[in-house]
Amino acid sequence: MKVRGQDMRVVWWSDDGIHYIDQRALPMRVEIGVARDVEEVARAIEVMAVRGAPLIGVFAAYGFALAARRGAALDAAYARLSGTRPTALNLWSGLDAVRAAAPNPCVMLAAARAYDDAGIAAAEAIGTHGLTLFRHGTRVLTHCNAGWLAVQDWGTALAPVYKAARAGLEPFVYVSETRPRLQGARLTAWELREEGVAHVVIADSAAAHLIQRGQVDLVLTGADRVAANGDAANKIGTYSRALAASAHGVPFYVAAPLSTIDRAITTGAEIPIEERPEDEVLTVEGVDDSGALVRVRVTPAGTKALNPAFDVTPHRLITGIVTEVGIVPASDRGIAEAFRRAADATRPGGRGGATRG
Amino acid sequence: MKVRGQDMRVVWWSDDGIHYIDQRALPMRVEIGVARDVEEVARAIEVMAVRGAPLIGVFAAYGFALAARRGAALDAAYARLSGTRPTALNLWSGLDAVRAAAPNPCVMLAAARAYDDAGIAAAEAIGTHGLTLFRHGTRVLTHCNAGWLAVQDWGTALAPVYKAARAGLEPFVYVSETRPRLQGARLTAWELREEGVAHVVIADSAAAHLIQRGQVDLVLTGADRVAANGDAANKIGTYSRALAASAHGVPFYVAAPLSTIDRAITTGAEIPIEERPEDEVLTVEGVDDSGALVRVRVTPAGTKALNPAFDVTPHRLITGIVTEVGIVPASDRGIAEAFRRAADATRPGGRGGATRG
Repeated sequence: MKVRGQDMRVVWWSDDGIHYIDQRALPMRVEIGVARDVEEVARAIEVMAVRGAPLIGVFAAYGFALAARRGAALDAAYARLSGTRPTALNLWSGLDAVRAAAPNPCVMLAAARAYDDAGIAAAEAIGTHGLTLFRHGTRVLTHCNAGWLAVQDWGTALAPVYKAARAGLEPFVYVSETRPRLQGARLTAWELREEGVAHVVIADSAAAHLIQRGQVDLVLTGADRVAANGDAANKIGTYSRALAASAHGVPFYVAAPLSTIDRAITTGAEIPIEERPEDEVLTVEGVDDSGALVRVRVTPAGTKALNPAFDVTPHRLITGIVTEVGIVPASDRGIAEAFRRAADATRPGGRGGATRG
Repeated sequence: MKVRGQDMRVVWWSDDGIHYIDQRALPMRVEIGVARDVEEVARAIEVMAVRGAPLIGVFAAYGFALAARRGAALDAAYARLSGTRPTALNLWSGLDAVRAAAPNPCVMLAAARAYDDAGIAAAEAIGTHGLTLFRHGTRVLTHCNAGWLAVQDWGTALAPVYKAARAGLEPFVYVSETRPRLQGARLTAWELREEGVAHVVIADSAAAHLIQRGQVDLVLTGADRVAANGDAANKIGTYSRALAASAHGVPFYVAAPLSTIDRAITTGAEIPIEERPEDEVLTVEGVDDSGALVRVRVTPAGTKALNPAFDVTPHRLITGIVTEVGIVPASDRGIAEAFRRAADATRPGGRGGATRG
């Protein structure tokens, strides 16, 4: 994707460390960070300089390869990286892909690159499948940031939007600001602006009203983890959008690569929900009149906050899951079918018949 | 109610003008404004220095009496004040109560005082009736600010909370911050803190999650206008809380005096929804490290926003309406019953039989 007209990735490997666009500085500045050891990789994930479930997986994969390159103890590195955040499954899939290639650092780096490339291909395929949900002028509501800042090069929820824009369908996007961290207002609005896609930012509370008034044709979000039955954990606020979409017959799709689906988890009730620091709710960061990035407190001094970072949308509210192997129902069956298709696609000779999900 | 231990009203008349706590400065500073003519009264409502449907009614009532006192043209004053905001019915009920006493300025002021006193009595009665919804330790979720800053002395949604606290029931309040203007984070949190009621602030998006997780016993909000069938317009975001409460069998009550009920409007679809300036969404106001009140921009430069200020909750999602004459069903019948009770109460000899709503 483009930043001021230049092609750019959000995370990339180089011999002096792993480079990343620091998402805490956006949209005010495009700031490039470099993580030079495992601890710096872990910290960048914890403070959400690098964020978005699939991107965390890619970044952790490179981080684990970096640990090998630096001669660090691999078990300790794995433990440090895997403990950074609790909800996104991709964190472990990224680490595991690289661990399977241990101990040769060059082979591990190749595994990280392959994991990265596969993620990009999956995201683009999600875009292609999701494009079928669009007509000319489709008005889509999204939440948080599931664009190319969260998933290398294409995004998940935004991948179909970018495909639709390139196909000349002129999509329109309602961007919910996504308190407390404002990933919608800061990141999604920035991405859409750089790509020239028409959009408007709304307060999170306005989503249900716009759906009720018939102003939204499609709700499309990403996911941090999907259970085997199709229940989906995503950024806090996703669930209330799904309730509103269901109440008004508006289709609600989750866009997620298979790497986000955790078949070891039966239902969404088992997905751990991260509680983040209360300061994220008590304060807001933005730029003041002088252009400086400042954090302001919006509550009385001493006020306490509660800050659950994700919620779980039950599968019955999800019209379908847009994956890299097609759009499948949010159900045990639909998800089994998706994995069957993926297995078939990787089998020599194409579609086999041996796999029964 | 108390501010730093001192009894205080939020709006009061004096001979040099109408005094008010400027709600834009809270919770950082308790700043007293004075509106000395009709234009200053109108501006204070428009910029939301004075806000909350019932309080707008009281303030406009005093403002109209002030116009008479100053010898201003009454028709022009009525037009100016009634055009300040479009959603709250109380604006007109306050003005009409004073207009009925025209043209004698002293009689008009007495009418404004009577309207104010009646509002305080109604709010306290709402508290008394709403108290029946509380047990020991009830966890209530509210939205925006429907406390004594919005309704003289007691509030509507918060009146039962204050009654419960004084009855030793130790209520706990989830305060949704209420973007874009953050009336929950700034005003409700401040009120509850001053009154010593346990509470925690949450991002608006967290409400449905807490309801889903069984952490909320009761949802209680105010209303800006209620239609004859029980549909209720209130601060944007109320509707999604009602959807979540309904999905999980949590009772959802609207607390509103009869002056908020517009029997001339059949359903909520007819209630005009105010669109407010997009800067409210694009920016956030708070205090920086030095304690100064600053406004920061949270979106990329040039980003557009949409800012509907209210939404309509359909009556079928409302468990009941807490009024000054008791809790009634949110339906044509329930509302007719409430007005019948009110008419009976004002008739000499108590309950009459002639009124059939």
